[in-house]
Amino acid sequence: MPTNRIANTDLASRIMDADAAASLISHGMTIGMSGFTGSGYPKAVPLALAKRIEAAHAAGDPFRCRVWTGASTGPELDGALAKADGIEFRLPYNSDPIAREKINRGEMEYFDMHLSQVAPMAWQGFLGPLDIAVIEVSGIRTDGSLIPSSSVGNNKTWLDRADGVILEVNRWQNPALEGMHDIYYGTALPPHRVPIPLVKADDRIGEAYFRCDPDKIIAIVETEAPDRNLPFAAPDTAAHAIAGHLIEFFRHEVAKGRLPASLLPLQSGVGNIANAVLTGLVSGPFENMTSYTEVIQDGMLDLLDSGKLRMASATAFSLSPEAAMRLNADMGRYRDTMILRAQEISNHPELIRRLGCLAMNGLIEADIYGNVNSTHIMGSRIQNGIGGSGDFARNAYVSIFMTPSTAKGGKISAIVPQASHVDHISQDVQVLVTEQGLADLRGLSPKQRAEVIIEKCAHPDYRPALADYYRRARAGSYGQQSPSLPGEALSWHQRFIETGSMMSG
Amino acid sequence: MPTNRIANTDLASRIMDADAAASLISHGMTIGMSGFTGSGYPKAVPLALAKRIEAAHAAGDPFRCRVWTGASTGPELDGALAKADGIEFRLPYNSDPIAREKINRGEMEYFDMHLSQVAPMAWQGFLGPLDIAVIEVSGIRTDGSLIPSSSVGNNKTWLDRADGVILEVNRWQNPALEGMHDIYYGTALPPHRVPIPLVKADDRIGEAYFRCDPDKIIAIVETEAPDRNLPFAAPDTAAHAIAGHLIEFFRHEVAKGRLPASLLPLQSGVGNIANAVLTGLVSGPFENMTSYTEVIQDGMLDLLDSGKLRMASATAFSLSPEAAMRLNADMGRYRDTMILRAQEISNHPELIRRLGCLAMNGLIEADIYGNVNSTHIMGSRIQNGIGGSGDFARNAYVSIFMTPSTAKGGKISAIVPQASHVDHISQDVQVLVTEQGLADLRGLSPKQRAEVIIEKCAHPDYRPALADYYRRARAGSYGQQSPSLPGEALSWHQRFIETGSMMSG
Repeated sequence: MPTNRIANTDLASRIMDADAAASLISHGMTIGMSGFTGSGYPKAVPLALAKRIEAAHAAGDPFRCRVWTGASTGPELDGALAKADGIEFRLPYNSDPIAREKINRGEMEYFDMHLSQVAPMAWQGFLGPLDIAVIEVSGIRTDGSLIPSSSVGNNKTWLDRADGVILEVNRWQNPALEGMHDIYYGTALPPHRVPIPLVKADDRIGEAYFRCDPDKIIAIVETEAPDRNLPFAAPDTAAHAIAGHLIEFFRHEVAKGRLPASLLPLQSGVGNIANAVLTGLVSGPFENMTSYTEVIQDGMLDLLDSGKLRMASATAFSLSPEAAMRLNADMGRYRDTMILRAQEISNHPELIRRLGCLAMNGLIEADIYGNVNSTHIMGSRIQNGIGGSGDFARNAYVSIFMTPSTAKGGKISAIVPQASHVDHISQDVQVLVTEQGLADLRGLSPKQRAEVIIEKCAHPDYRPALADYYRRARAGSYGQQSPSLPGEALSWHQRFIETGSMMSG
Repeated sequence: MPTNRIANTDLASRIMDADAAASLISHGMTIGMSGFTGSGYPKAVPLALAKRIEAAHAAGDPFRCRVWTGASTGPELDGALAKADGIEFRLPYNSDPIAREKINRGEMEYFDMHLSQVAPMAWQGFLGPLDIAVIEVSGIRTDGSLIPSSSVGNNKTWLDRADGVILEVNRWQNPALEGMHDIYYGTALPPHRVPIPLVKADDRIGEAYFRCDPDKIIAIVETEAPDRNLPFAAPDTAAHAIAGHLIEFFRHEVAKGRLPASLLPLQSGVGNIANAVLTGLVSGPFENMTSYTEVIQDGMLDLLDSGKLRMASATAFSLSPEAAMRLNADMGRYRDTMILRAQEISNHPELIRRLGCLAMNGLIEADIYGNVNSTHIMGSRIQNGIGGSGDFARNAYVSIFMTPSTAKGGKISAIVPQASHVDHISQDVQVLVTEQGLADLRGLSPKQRAEVIIEKCAHPDYRPALADYYRRARAGSYGQQSPSLPGEALSWHQRFIETGSMMSG
């Protein structure tokens, strides 16, 4: 019998359990799943599918799928399917530790993409057909339209593109989510694209629901399970120092007349440092702020509660269990200050450049010229993925990257002679911040950047070695635009691989 | 006495010779010059300024300026000023050999920028004030508005931002240029940005003239001098092979229904290979094409003449002397098939993504994962600059990079284990073409990309060494997402620096 989360009675016959729904998926299929930073991913069907895959493998039968999502999901999806060795190919972002290990052992192909480009590329066709969409929703309305869950991600596109649709209706999701979403149906493939009519972070340009052809719905599974809400570690001294440098920079830019007093829409990556910055803004001098970002995290709630942030636009939540409870307890009020959009809109270069976002993202390492590696440890081992950082960094009004100056108890320097992998080229890295200080790189040549980065951002334990490398490159480099010594440029990484530390001798 | 190129009689008193105009420029000033790929740059005042600088230096006085342009200019500007040691800092693009040498000797600071970002960043303010604009125009109208010359570049912004304006009215420029330009005055700083109302490559959204406050005009210099029109070398066998592979790819995409039969707006970098592709399209099967690009070069005229290209939108011309004559002889007719826009519009990410450009750009080297180096030879020596390639590559419908598989008579492989500098990350490099073949990298993981690139694009002389590196990296890398050996990844570059060849033994 349909519950009140499933108002369309015609669809009642398609309600089944997760095992029955998973049996509709077979080896070799491409599955588009919901889910973005641990929110709104399906929680029952992927687990049932993993069981099915394990049974097939035990029987000696092949069973692997291509899995597309919004971004990272939860252990019941990426973790379970990776553990079952059920993922042949994965896009566009992963942070699951089991899947990460498989990728880094070379046992799973992973296509790490700009998050704004996933939906348009799926339409473009070269990724191949999408067999089945598995989408968590918070309800089905009388007219068959779908109330989105705690993330939007690529769900609109998966629902439109898939041959068959499996819905998970999750009763755990707060019914007051209804009305928070803004699903824009005006995208198209060229030559039919038109301007996206969004000019402020709080503009609504679409509908509150997903459209879905009811004939495509092959299964509906009812669930009642929480999102993957992970506790945030409290910001440490380094995070507070970074937040302090950055807020001082904003204050300086406002004083110079280069930023409005309400700043510009904030984009903020996920994590402790980002949270420290957001929390720091609670006691900062800026009022009437907005954010236009991927993810609403704990610090964003604090900032909304303070009244200093007027509106948060994102594609998903990424909250600690405490913050999720806080949000759920007061969803009716928060709903008017939040908009969740498709990730092709939350991350759209057109909109990021128009709004002039202040982009704040983390990194793994930056080199002395400010090229940033966000993804590959020692150049080869994937951590998570580029995510939306490229969408934001290249189009931001000010593109900021921030990191503690060392990692692994000082054995890794976040500032290196040459980045072992590049995700963000120097042109897209305008401000670099560590607990040591802030380097404003705007308008500087590579050599000018190197001097500022070594002086302001490097840890004192590594500063002399960086200065020495740079001095010798200035003397002996093949060219002097971006002096480098290719025989030595990646030696810090090689040393870490061999000895467990970038520190020499 | 004003000539008929200067219709506004109030401005007659400001006509003077180049020496008098140059005397208005002093040490330490920031000068915004016109000019883009050798078109429409001022030809008299920079030469006079270079003389003045040389005289000052001979007298022991300091005299250096900060020089901003659209992109590359000509020997009378960058060459003369660099020779006089008169440029302290240069942005956003240079291809002058004398300036290049000074940069690579570390004697001139060079900030190599995304060309779409120059105008907005000048408005943003962190580049500092603009003292004087020196702008070539083809005429001044009765109402004081300016008829643009053979490039638009950043002229609108320099005219708006500069404290004083020096105009060069160049009688060599064809008066029939009038009406070809489309100057959009709707840009702004955030939070006041709005959608740019361009939806087709041939839309006109602005005015045919520059506005200019007459009170800011401090000098008008009359000139009659040609643009830097360099002969193109005829495409060689490699260029024809690359063009052939690419046209076959387009044909295949049309057959698959992934591109319309008229393709999508073409963007094409400058040079022999780009010209070979454009010329190849003359005999190709595609009709009713458009281009939305930076530069109109010889091959584009051929394509317009063939009737297969309906419209070319750009910010400048870059023609051989023969093609410039051909254009000038028939400007009235060509004018209706061409639009020259400001580079902030020709290269705007919003518009490139909306139109879905097919981006075709050259490179210096690509690594086995398809990270592209467009700028730095051996990682340190600047060739020209990133130009607009980043604007187009990241936002294109299909982002294509093309190059002969070797350079310097085989001593340099264009495919290397790891790029010594990265301008275009693998996500922005979807198709890689050499005379050896075409690698369609869309939707592939890094390891899948490496196999295709080594097989399809590498020169046979280097293929075994690349395959050997990759095999050993697959066995011994720290991680297996993008296998690499940091101790060896840049050894090909080091070997070239030491021995003059990347080839071992």
